[in-house]
Amino acid sequence: MTITHEPTTSSEVATELEDLDRRHLFRSMQRGDITDRVVIVRGQGCTVWDARGNELLDAAGGGVWHSPLGHGRRELGEVAARQIGELEYFTSLLEFTNDKAIRLASRIANLAPDGLNRVFFTSGGSEAVETAIKAARLYHHRRGDTDRTWVISRNYSFHGTAYGSGTLTGFPPVHLGVGPNLPHVERVSPPYPYRAADLYGGRDTTDFLIDELEQTIRRLGPGNVAAMIGEPVMAAGGVLEPPADYWPRVRELLTRHGILLIADEVVTGYGRIGSWFDSPGRGMGADMITLAKGIAGGYMPLGATIMSDEVSQTLLDTGGFFHGYTFQGHPVACAVGLATIDIIERENLLSKADLIAEWCRTGLAPVVDLPAVGDLRVVGSLAAVELVADRTTREPMAWGPVEQVAFEIRKRHGVIARPYGPMLVLAPPLVISQAETARATSAVVDVLAKLRPDGTIAA
Amino acid sequence: MTITHEPTTSSEVATELEDLDRRHLFRSMQRGDITDRVVIVRGQGCTVWDARGNELLDAAGGGVWHSPLGHGRRELGEVAARQIGELEYFTSLLEFTNDKAIRLASRIANLAPDGLNRVFFTSGGSEAVETAIKAARLYHHRRGDTDRTWVISRNYSFHGTAYGSGTLTGFPPVHLGVGPNLPHVERVSPPYPYRAADLYGGRDTTDFLIDELEQTIRRLGPGNVAAMIGEPVMAAGGVLEPPADYWPRVRELLTRHGILLIADEVVTGYGRIGSWFDSPGRGMGADMITLAKGIAGGYMPLGATIMSDEVSQTLLDTGGFFHGYTFQGHPVACAVGLATIDIIERENLLSKADLIAEWCRTGLAPVVDLPAVGDLRVVGSLAAVELVADRTTREPMAWGPVEQVAFEIRKRHGVIARPYGPMLVLAPPLVISQAETARATSAVVDVLAKLRPDGTIAA
Repeated sequence: MTITHEPTTSSEVATELEDLDRRHLFRSMQRGDITDRVVIVRGQGCTVWDARGNELLDAAGGGVWHSPLGHGRRELGEVAARQIGELEYFTSLLEFTNDKAIRLASRIANLAPDGLNRVFFTSGGSEAVETAIKAARLYHHRRGDTDRTWVISRNYSFHGTAYGSGTLTGFPPVHLGVGPNLPHVERVSPPYPYRAADLYGGRDTTDFLIDELEQTIRRLGPGNVAAMIGEPVMAAGGVLEPPADYWPRVRELLTRHGILLIADEVVTGYGRIGSWFDSPGRGMGADMITLAKGIAGGYMPLGATIMSDEVSQTLLDTGGFFHGYTFQGHPVACAVGLATIDIIERENLLSKADLIAEWCRTGLAPVVDLPAVGDLRVVGSLAAVELVADRTTREPMAWGPVEQVAFEIRKRHGVIARPYGPMLVLAPPLVISQAETARATSAVVDVLAKLRPDGTIAA
Repeated sequence: MTITHEPTTSSEVATELEDLDRRHLFRSMQRGDITDRVVIVRGQGCTVWDARGNELLDAAGGGVWHSPLGHGRRELGEVAARQIGELEYFTSLLEFTNDKAIRLASRIANLAPDGLNRVFFTSGGSEAVETAIKAARLYHHRRGDTDRTWVISRNYSFHGTAYGSGTLTGFPPVHLGVGPNLPHVERVSPPYPYRAADLYGGRDTTDFLIDELEQTIRRLGPGNVAAMIGEPVMAAGGVLEPPADYWPRVRELLTRHGILLIADEVVTGYGRIGSWFDSPGRGMGADMITLAKGIAGGYMPLGATIMSDEVSQTLLDTGGFFHGYTFQGHPVACAVGLATIDIIERENLLSKADLIAEWCRTGLAPVVDLPAVGDLRVVGSLAAVELVADRTTREPMAWGPVEQVAFEIRKRHGVIARPYGPMLVLAPPLVISQAETARATSAVVDVLAKLRPDGTIAA
């Protein structure tokens, strides 16, 4: 079809945009039965506006917990414009590189745990995870350990949706109908305190999980496993925080068997849980860390795989790594990435996670007694309410009603929360105020108070 | 390490950047034995400058044939800054969308062949190809054709380096040591006129290739094949143009067996070969088209998978597509994508490919008699010189000497050409002038005249 004119009134433009969207766009989780459209056209701080002029409070960090800085920072527009005027992009192949990628890699290496000094840039988290898995397998291969090809991930994890990262992701809908998926991927159980009784049969969570992991490694053959990947705290899985002894014991077990550990910090990094990286404080001692989402504030597509000296130097010294993406080390994205670090430091945003946690705990406290709520979990600036069809059996709420809950929260209160499986998730920009947080949590409490275990919502 | 100060002289800064790069960056095709560094810091038109002040002519389209518009267009910086001031990004999950993604999807659908009306945005070509393969398999699965899982690609193709796209890529170094790769991928021979005698045993190229493809489909089982993917003209393979009857006969064969065809136009699209899309004119009749590289001029990471109504509507109506990337439909990238189309139209850049082809043919003509040159191929604004160790046996030149040739072209003449396997490739920005093209081709001719079949270069 051809666009013949631009309608002159806002309502006409909104209708035109919504129609064009239904006709021409296709995206993740879009479905034929979702015909409603919210065309976001403007953002400022934690507020966004749609094409119909509706004002919405973004309590979901831009929708996919990727926004630490909030919306509409003109300063970052100036950074991007200045960089485009200097150099928009030139390849980073072979001997070519650029100053902004170098500066950002240096800054990230300074912030990263000791020994992780080399940065491989990508344009997002899936690409970063693909890079990490390939690097892990190739590292062993180049050392002569050519049988080490298995990668262990966990149920309820989210690592991306390209073929490697998607196979690692622990949600079956990502795998269904697109297989065969990547071979030599095995999944184990995650720490899931709310479901410990069902999952671990009354045993200590960490004891159970370490036994399961050890048995898995033995079954695959300890000499056949390349790496394990895990989020320090599982975000998409529903803000699942491990017991304090979980990661240290996992790390010890993996080290004993010569298996690398990849920390997927795409969500948890850059202040989401109060520090630049969440994995060191949990004792992961990762060999590689993946980053994306917030590392350019969400203002530019950017991701990164940070590698240990041992892994990266081995690859470099044995022929390099025939892997990478056209836009790797994009100077505009990296310039915005440098400014993102500056802003987080200048505005002391790392300290905000604890405050947001406190505000969320207080504001969401009333939900724990509601009939369709199973559990409330808050870790740093991540909050999840786990919805159930039955509080006794803990049967999860179906996905559809949870989407409806998010829909009602938006319609009735102008607040955006994220539905994900049986979870309703908040992950606001780190710049959110106490009043805004209270508005978001009140909206959640109000609608959840009307939610019945059968998934219907009272008027 | 900690950066304690910014050196004050340019030479000191350059040295610092080069050192930091060696210490902290890791990228595609980087190797321990490549210690030289070219830190690109500025670009304008077809010229880029490194941190040491060296001026270089970019005859490689930004290094990876991704730059149709040339460098340093401040207009695009203003577009990016304006968009960031309005809305940098909000998720495109579920019912959420944004005006710039909608407008760009509409524009692309208008330019695309009939029946391809729906656009799935990504941040690059690998992600676009992953999307296309998953969509193809899922399309069949949802229609009950659950055995259709095989994907056919071709030797010497380049489709990316994530696990799905990398497995399809027809260069073994991408697969080695990172496997097991994606199952149910099969490769066939490409049209390769220069090596036809060896590859096709004296038979007509298309006859041979259609027979091989048909036998492959029969061996896999016609009901087990989901899709074939191919570049209309193979770029990384060395600018391999198929005979005129190749794609029409491939298309007919695939249609007969219910197999989808994906045209990978990441390189060939957006004017590189003189039109928005190269595949329709070659009779591909693709069900999906992948785009990336130049669709935001290289100024932003952006990719897209354009899908037929049949494929996209089937997925939408049967539960949607649980696949996608955080930064899908990024408004800043899409705003720059809209401006890229405006510039290509305003400056009539589609018409430039024929001119560049003529200039390259004229300028590179002398190489065809040189002792280490096997073949010269020019298709639109893509030119490849295939280097050989022996003109009679056509034994390919090793990769190392070809890299050295590109190095010498840069060192002696300040011209950037791209080494890729045994090929030396030119793919200049479409804004290149006749004088600049002559400078680039002269540089290539001069160094190739000094190249001996043993790979050494005369002083």
